[in-house]
Amino acid sequence: MNASTPLQLNGALLLQQIRALGQVGADATHGGRTRIALSDAEKAGRDLLVGWMRELDLDVQVDRIGNIFGTLRAAADSGEQRPLMMGSHIDTVTNAGALDGCYGVLAGLAVIRAYRDAGRLPERSITVGAFTNEEGVRYQPDMMGSLVYAGGLPLQQALDTLGTDGTRLGDELARIGYAGTLEPGAIVPHEYLELHIEQGPILEAENTLIGVVENLQGISWQQVEVKGHANHAGTTPTHLRHDAGFVASAIVAELRAMAVDSGTTLATVGCMQFEPNVINVIPRKATFTVDLRDPDETCLAYAENRLSQYLEALAEREGVTITTERLVRFEPVIFDAELADAIEASAQRFGFSHRRMTSGAGHDAQMIARIAPAAMIFVPSQGGISHNPREHTDDEQLIQGAQVLLDVVSRRLTHP
Amino acid sequence: MNASTPLQLNGALLLQQIRALGQVGADATHGGRTRIALSDAEKAGRDLLVGWMRELDLDVQVDRIGNIFGTLRAAADSGEQRPLMMGSHIDTVTNAGALDGCYGVLAGLAVIRAYRDAGRLPERSITVGAFTNEEGVRYQPDMMGSLVYAGGLPLQQALDTLGTDGTRLGDELARIGYAGTLEPGAIVPHEYLELHIEQGPILEAENTLIGVVENLQGISWQQVEVKGHANHAGTTPTHLRHDAGFVASAIVAELRAMAVDSGTTLATVGCMQFEPNVINVIPRKATFTVDLRDPDETCLAYAENRLSQYLEALAEREGVTITTERLVRFEPVIFDAELADAIEASAQRFGFSHRRMTSGAGHDAQMIARIAPAAMIFVPSQGGISHNPREHTDDEQLIQGAQVLLDVVSRRLTHP
Repeated sequence: MNASTPLQLNGALLLQQIRALGQVGADATHGGRTRIALSDAEKAGRDLLVGWMRELDLDVQVDRIGNIFGTLRAAADSGEQRPLMMGSHIDTVTNAGALDGCYGVLAGLAVIRAYRDAGRLPERSITVGAFTNEEGVRYQPDMMGSLVYAGGLPLQQALDTLGTDGTRLGDELARIGYAGTLEPGAIVPHEYLELHIEQGPILEAENTLIGVVENLQGISWQQVEVKGHANHAGTTPTHLRHDAGFVASAIVAELRAMAVDSGTTLATVGCMQFEPNVINVIPRKATFTVDLRDPDETCLAYAENRLSQYLEALAEREGVTITTERLVRFEPVIFDAELADAIEASAQRFGFSHRRMTSGAGHDAQMIARIAPAAMIFVPSQGGISHNPREHTDDEQLIQGAQVLLDVVSRRLTHP
Repeated sequence: MNASTPLQLNGALLLQQIRALGQVGADATHGGRTRIALSDAEKAGRDLLVGWMRELDLDVQVDRIGNIFGTLRAAADSGEQRPLMMGSHIDTVTNAGALDGCYGVLAGLAVIRAYRDAGRLPERSITVGAFTNEEGVRYQPDMMGSLVYAGGLPLQQALDTLGTDGTRLGDELARIGYAGTLEPGAIVPHEYLELHIEQGPILEAENTLIGVVENLQGISWQQVEVKGHANHAGTTPTHLRHDAGFVASAIVAELRAMAVDSGTTLATVGCMQFEPNVINVIPRKATFTVDLRDPDETCLAYAENRLSQYLEALAEREGVTITTERLVRFEPVIFDAELADAIEASAQRFGFSHRRMTSGAGHDAQMIARIAPAAMIFVPSQGGISHNPREHTDDEQLIQGAQVLLDVVSRRLTHP
């Protein structure tokens, strides 16, 4: 075989590996699998992945935050070359689907396998990365491994993170044997591609196969506390009420109006708590969260300001106190336009339906975008369901997404 | 002394008894007092009350549901006469104020004491009643003693009621020694008067001393459950959401609009629960309570219908399922107009500020109104606060309210 042997994706083996990894940490009682980052189950998943990397005879490296990299070296690479990197993560939430993260990592292996099967070495080294603790279940923040890797969080601070169970991240990393020696960020990618399930309903709703992800929404999380007065539901006239529950509900309704008016901003109130939470007592306190997202920083800031002004006016009108606490704030990320064009062109060649889109969820790609040109490819999520045992993408779609990844990678290497 | 000796209220002794009874079941840690019906603390309160009735040389009777009656017999009463009854209750909620219920019972004793102090016998027998389990903390329903008394709940069913602690009401009643022998309803009042703190803010807000309670609101309690779809807050476009939390909040906002439009209907959502209650997940379920009240049955039924129609339209629009469960439904009670006029005339003579009003809370008077002409007198509650250690009415106001009660009673007896 030689450099012109065509690259062929082994779709069956990709599906087989997705299923095998999906068995690690399987929960027979509640369904799905649970591989919380740096747990015993996740160590087993890491061991399986590293084994597969070694089967492909890759150069396996683990960095000090536990990110795993498997590299197929180009003939010309003396170790100093910037590789084309594909990656994602293999840790999961509780009772997760089998695809979130794992699909992107294993599709990366499938791309490398296509080179091995063809007996070809790539024109530029290719690295597959699996980043530590993307889900952020036990240790905050999420996307931690890629964030540290991109220089956005000091290594020592990440290692000293205490988990919800009181454990120290660095200790757990050493315990499972994945405290590597590579300095995070030592391998700077030439370009970075992440293939992922959409985790949303848009592609399915529009009957489209490939999402060309050109940007990723900014996220603003706040906790809001409304303090009113508890009073008897039967004896307090409406005009004398300071009803924290009503005020909270009015804010939820206003957030929906903001989302509809904007057309791009998403607004969600996921958590809500009334006190004293008694049927015939006007709530004295309501606590809730606000999740605002927009692909454009100006629009996101506008939504925050409009909410803030609404809160001020409402507090005045209803005679309540409203305080807010910022929990998370990430600016939107714009992915590399040239890479997005390359993905679109590839989908076009295959004759796959495709659309430009925004990622609503956070991904490792947004961190790596800080240090390298990056973009993402999405395939449909049935019913938009994710973080759930019912997460599903058809096998054919999974293979087609990986074919696009292989096509983009091989063309980036031959027509750089 | 003779029949013309003026009747004089001993206000100091009334206040002293309110304070003494308020010490029974006092909670040094959390404030207030806790005399849950048929508990040891409530038995101690009953013993104190019966002792005071005996000091006044009243004919004390206890019925089979534990209601206590102390009667000062008219000279002409061979035991067959229908007495004028005053009453309320001495059981409390947890960490209660000292006035709710107790004020009306002890003011009744103060009225009788005025006759004793003047050496006069009343023209018609006077009975003071303390009804069992008005608060309904341990045993449901509330206002149970007066409900059984008025024939609204079979005695045996009440005795067989199981408490939140698994005890049987009849057993607890026997244990504390208050399972009497009188048949409930055996003493049918000629008329019934209940003096009570307002437990609401209206009298204080309008700087008015005496509330002439001419009716009592109907109550409609429902539990509402909204079922939508849980989805990712970042990836689900607004138009594809089935957000149970938003739908619940929209209903709360609509209920406020209903209350404002009506002017008489009160609407309260006291309990609210989102599921899964996670910051970045669109709520799949919201469960909440609706408390609707109105003094007019037509208005209350209109509010129920308007809500029901709104739920139907909203469920259709948002693609969610909404189910409701009726928890409580009492029709409004209209008190006796002649008694209300008598209360108003009395306040007028004293030169006390007064207003006609509706009782927003439930009271024993609404049950006794089923078997006898009944009405209520309210005095102000500071800040509208009740069911709370901070429940407060000024001593002077307490005495003035009891003076109105004495005046109304004595005139009803001399000008029947």
